[in-house]
Amino acid sequence: MEMKTIENMSKSSGSAAYEISDFKMLERVLRDSIKEPVTVAIACAHDYESLKAIFKAEDEGLADYLLLGIKPEIINLAERLHKEGACSQKQLDELIGRIVHCENGEEAAVKAVEAIRSGKAQVLFKGIMQTKTLLKEVVNKDRGLGTGSLMSSVVLLDVPKYHKIFAVTDPGMVMYPDLSDKVDLVKNAEKLMTSFGYEAVKVAGICAIEVVNEKMPETVDAARIEEMSTAGELGRVTFQGPLSMDVAMNKEMAEHKKTFGSVAGNADVLLVPSIATGNVIVKSLMVLADAKMAGCVVGASCPIVLTSRSADFSERYYSILACALSASR
Amino acid sequence: MEMKTIENMSKSSGSAAYEISDFKMLERVLRDSIKEPVTVAIACAHDYESLKAIFKAEDEGLADYLLLGIKPEIINLAERLHKEGACSQKQLDELIGRIVHCENGEEAAVKAVEAIRSGKAQVLFKGIMQTKTLLKEVVNKDRGLGTGSLMSSVVLLDVPKYHKIFAVTDPGMVMYPDLSDKVDLVKNAEKLMTSFGYEAVKVAGICAIEVVNEKMPETVDAARIEEMSTAGELGRVTFQGPLSMDVAMNKEMAEHKKTFGSVAGNADVLLVPSIATGNVIVKSLMVLADAKMAGCVVGASCPIVLTSRSADFSERYYSILACALSASR
Repeated sequence: MEMKTIENMSKSSGSAAYEISDFKMLERVLRDSIKEPVTVAIACAHDYESLKAIFKAEDEGLADYLLLGIKPEIINLAERLHKEGACSQKQLDELIGRIVHCENGEEAAVKAVEAIRSGKAQVLFKGIMQTKTLLKEVVNKDRGLGTGSLMSSVVLLDVPKYHKIFAVTDPGMVMYPDLSDKVDLVKNAEKLMTSFGYEAVKVAGICAIEVVNEKMPETVDAARIEEMSTAGELGRVTFQGPLSMDVAMNKEMAEHKKTFGSVAGNADVLLVPSIATGNVIVKSLMVLADAKMAGCVVGASCPIVLTSRSADFSERYYSILACALSASR
Repeated sequence: MEMKTIENMSKSSGSAAYEISDFKMLERVLRDSIKEPVTVAIACAHDYESLKAIFKAEDEGLADYLLLGIKPEIINLAERLHKEGACSQKQLDELIGRIVHCENGEEAAVKAVEAIRSGKAQVLFKGIMQTKTLLKEVVNKDRGLGTGSLMSSVVLLDVPKYHKIFAVTDPGMVMYPDLSDKVDLVKNAEKLMTSFGYEAVKVAGICAIEVVNEKMPETVDAARIEEMSTAGELGRVTFQGPLSMDVAMNKEMAEHKKTFGSVAGNADVLLVPSIATGNVIVKSLMVLADAKMAGCVVGASCPIVLTSRSADFSERYYSILACALSASR
């Protein structure tokens, strides 16, 4: 039986990815893949954009929700969204039963993490609160969501000029990964990508150059991870590196530079050597290449949405769907 | 008297930058700014794309040339380019007098650097040879082109979705700059940008975040350089950092994140913390955002074109113009 891959999904729609707007492509892949809605616990849900995003996902049968935060503020925002057509009458009627009142961020973090541990929710979502407040509770040894694995951030990107959705890790959480961290980053990304139906995950070890240079430790690390991949130590991952960004993302450039292998020109995941490197890829493409993104923190016992305060509605909505899909597998 | 700036140049054309193709914008800015052609010494000029680029620049009165390399091969290529309409009859007639035969890369490097030192040429251009062979001669203490300054790479980018040409440093030469190196990178970039007529240069210290975090040394460095800029220690540079890529390059994102200052949303130069960070910006935008680029190595006694073997004709041509412009100031 052939497994579903995002490449196949693009093809099976009967049209090339280029004919579909970037916006719809990420949305379609995520929406079509969710079979069972899971429950999203929003810590500090008294936030306009977050509520709007979760109401949309719930209305479409893609997610359920539990709202932790300042109750009167949540109700006010829901009434406003109702007037704007972004919250149905049914959602407004059922609202009270889904709110857990919390006075502040600390309380919301504790109760949201509790909800995950007790099985009441399967995805954790940061509303309008400090990231560190939520993470402090997530990594709490006694009552947190740690699994012993490295927690890392994976951003899915949909860029009109690339032929499929791809991921960057880590653009937001692990600052200066060493070799062991990088192997964990790859494994975490692999789990997320296979939850979308990929049967094999092509990971590029991104560096400034395509050859090993002892003065550039990231090139040495990339070559070492490629050896591990070749030896079959990385499961469904095919790793190639060091690769420069153009060789990883463009078949013509790869051929021009005589860099072959199944990852060159066709990467699913970009492993970057530092948080700054990943961050500039994501933000350059969002600001200058019409990229749409979904973010997911993986490695805890549930996927976590940690979108930044500047995230717009669509980023929040896509991130909810990506984490919900990941949690349902 | 108001000095010419690239922003003014865009405006004075009577149309918004967005209405001009990215290709033409970089070309126009470079072409319009060159008043006096300088001589470009091409080391290992027996290269199709390099010859095509310099023939175009010379034909347009934008550069002169001296060709160092395997003479019969240069003549063969020139005859081929003549048949293709890319080398004029006049250029073909004058060819022999401009060729200095060299057997190999080492000899071409020595003679090309000599040509710069003796004043016969003002720009050094790497043809079809190893970068390290040329650089070894450039940094030679007795007969090289060192000035005591750090040599660094600046890439000019023209991206349709940004409102002006901007630069990234260092995406290709200085691997892991420390604070002192970063100050030199800024100064080198400032020299190049002011040679294009900028009267002030807005430099963004690019990091993954916009706040200082002691665990991220690049944020500390960026804040320190901003202090130096505020204290007037950086000449015509206005430095702001740490800034994330979206805040540096997009006014709406800057306002949304309440990051003010003259650089936010309007950067001329992006100072990046590592070669990998700069390299992924340049290559992401070239592959996925239709960017056009011109590269220039600065800090030696003349500008140097070190385009990679995969550089196409337009990249070589633009880089020649950028270096010629820089050398003529």
